[in-house]
Amino acid sequence: MTTKFSSPLGLHRVIEPPGVLPQAAWRLDASPAIAPDEVRIRVDRLNLDAASYRQIRETYSGDPDKIRTAVLDIVTTRGKMQNPVTGSGGMLTGYVDAAGPQSPLGLKPGQRIATLVSLTLTPLAITDGLVRWDGQSEQVPCEGHAILFARSIAAVLPDDLPGPLALAVMDVCGAPALTSRVVRKGSVVLVIGAAGKSGSLSAAAARQAGAATIIGVVPSEEEAALLRDPVAPAKDGGAGGMPPDVRPRPAADLRAPQSPLADEIVIADARDPIDLAEKVGTAGGPADVTVVCVDVAGCEGGAILSTKQGGTVIFFSMATSFSAAALGAEGLAADVTMLVGNGYVPGHADFALDLIRGVPAVRKLFERRVGS
Amino acid sequence: MTTKFSSPLGLHRVIEPPGVLPQAAWRLDASPAIAPDEVRIRVDRLNLDAASYRQIRETYSGDPDKIRTAVLDIVTTRGKMQNPVTGSGGMLTGYVDAAGPQSPLGLKPGQRIATLVSLTLTPLAITDGLVRWDGQSEQVPCEGHAILFARSIAAVLPDDLPGPLALAVMDVCGAPALTSRVVRKGSVVLVIGAAGKSGSLSAAAARQAGAATIIGVVPSEEEAALLRDPVAPAKDGGAGGMPPDVRPRPAADLRAPQSPLADEIVIADARDPIDLAEKVGTAGGPADVTVVCVDVAGCEGGAILSTKQGGTVIFFSMATSFSAAALGAEGLAADVTMLVGNGYVPGHADFALDLIRGVPAVRKLFERRVGS
Repeated sequence: MTTKFSSPLGLHRVIEPPGVLPQAAWRLDASPAIAPDEVRIRVDRLNLDAASYRQIRETYSGDPDKIRTAVLDIVTTRGKMQNPVTGSGGMLTGYVDAAGPQSPLGLKPGQRIATLVSLTLTPLAITDGLVRWDGQSEQVPCEGHAILFARSIAAVLPDDLPGPLALAVMDVCGAPALTSRVVRKGSVVLVIGAAGKSGSLSAAAARQAGAATIIGVVPSEEEAALLRDPVAPAKDGGAGGMPPDVRPRPAADLRAPQSPLADEIVIADARDPIDLAEKVGTAGGPADVTVVCVDVAGCEGGAILSTKQGGTVIFFSMATSFSAAALGAEGLAADVTMLVGNGYVPGHADFALDLIRGVPAVRKLFERRVGS
Repeated sequence: MTTKFSSPLGLHRVIEPPGVLPQAAWRLDASPAIAPDEVRIRVDRLNLDAASYRQIRETYSGDPDKIRTAVLDIVTTRGKMQNPVTGSGGMLTGYVDAAGPQSPLGLKPGQRIATLVSLTLTPLAITDGLVRWDGQSEQVPCEGHAILFARSIAAVLPDDLPGPLALAVMDVCGAPALTSRVVRKGSVVLVIGAAGKSGSLSAAAARQAGAATIIGVVPSEEEAALLRDPVAPAKDGGAGGMPPDVRPRPAADLRAPQSPLADEIVIADARDPIDLAEKVGTAGGPADVTVVCVDVAGCEGGAILSTKQGGTVIFFSMATSFSAAALGAEGLAADVTMLVGNGYVPGHADFALDLIRGVPAVRKLFERRVGS
């Protein structure tokens, strides 16, 4: 970067088309020289967005060479890892290499960090040809550098948690932070997808915020068992957990009280609004606050119908349809406040990591999901 | 209807697929016999959703016969007027024909009403072959009947306002009601699309709620002129108003104080986030509350970037992309509350009609838009 002007949003790194935000840009300038308010990261791993990785793998029928070449081509061409088909990116980890004197991020050289803004707007160069990546998972070990702007977000990785676990938590950390803001003491909270990563963290956040009753919705008996007791082995291993005999069992957690994440568990297809609302009604609903954490389309009606008049629905699922939510509420004459789940809330990473540290049931669920 | 069971949501009218909500249904039962909690309306006019009408008109290149046939086919096949391509409906007006003894809507035979729930979930039959419709506008004079459920919403049309004006107001009445809830005294409010119907009502609602500064964004000088002085003729008539010499000028309105709807007017392309945010900044922004009322895609980033940290964005535009809003806020590290504009707020129709009665500038804008 030889330019003297730098923008907190990274506008000075946009090459094509000029004048757009970095996320909307086709090509970014990933030069390693940093502006006074930028930070350079020595990258050691990319965590590709699941939809992006799946698209690339399927396009190249799983061929490792072609998959590597495809990712390298994207990064070389665009100066960032944004899959042009899916539009999505992912996140990265690495070490702070250099921090400009005017950077407000508070990072120091040598710190290990994860970016909490998407790869879709992060200038990135890869220098090792991805030789250490087998192309068989969205975890991409690599060498290279990335640039953080003044208004980027990065979190220092904690020393006391395994890296993959911390990363998995940070990936969904907006959900518990926003849930915590919305839930009031004594309220009934419904979490759709309560056994998942963002769902279990949101349930724990709701409990901490003083929810009186937490109703967790899951799609199957396997998921219900996992939510009921994250330590017990799943019936058939179908829930994707690791085998119980190699699961780490930190002594501190086993000593903590085994309070459940959900007071009531409802097994239902969240895409069937009538069935869902009836079952939620039997379990103590409708809810004051409903948190939608399942990445399947068509859950808007059920969420709205399961929420009290005057209540709030928070949509975290990226499969949410804006018009289905807006028209659905109108069609049901439902006076509910509907929030778009914003992935950024100040302090969200620390908040979520503290939940993982303090709530054994969430940690165990994550350990099973992450397989760490 | 021979069934003895009826559901407040209209589930008993769903034919295909069974078990879904009326809005999600492919086909409804539009039989004229009503259940004890239903109301039958003698329909005199449909007001098709603008996107739906545009799609049909473009598909049939404006041919009136084909347009009429297309709408008739949809209603006959589906038992409701829901365009299968756009998914949208519209609203209707008519007279209460029969009200079941258990209907909670409080309607009496003979009252002239407008439905405030979408046509996408309203059982409808057309009996006159649409012979009185020229196919050249989304206003469809017709004969037929429609059914309201216990949980439907209908408003009695006021005597003191012309029908088309009242209808146009009711069509967008969710926006001012929700804006009024969100705006706090002394705040800076940004209305994107301030010279439009929902935009001008939202600006008036914000003023009434005590906003200190209202910034209106419009796309062109013509719209700016309209917002500045709704009575003055548009430069070239391009804003779609009626000719000034035939415009009705109610004496009461001309005597009222001519307070402007917006304190500051910004001419900008709302799809260009950098340009929009800079201009809004110069005009007194960023805003505490931003209301998005323009039906064009790609306005999420500009709205977010023009809003203060800790502020709120209300998306009323049906062109809003859920993922663009969620990822956009995260990518900008923007701590903003983002609301899905719910078309239903209790009392929304009366609230909006009172704004039209009490705020001359809004009324004049509407009269120009509606051409009444």
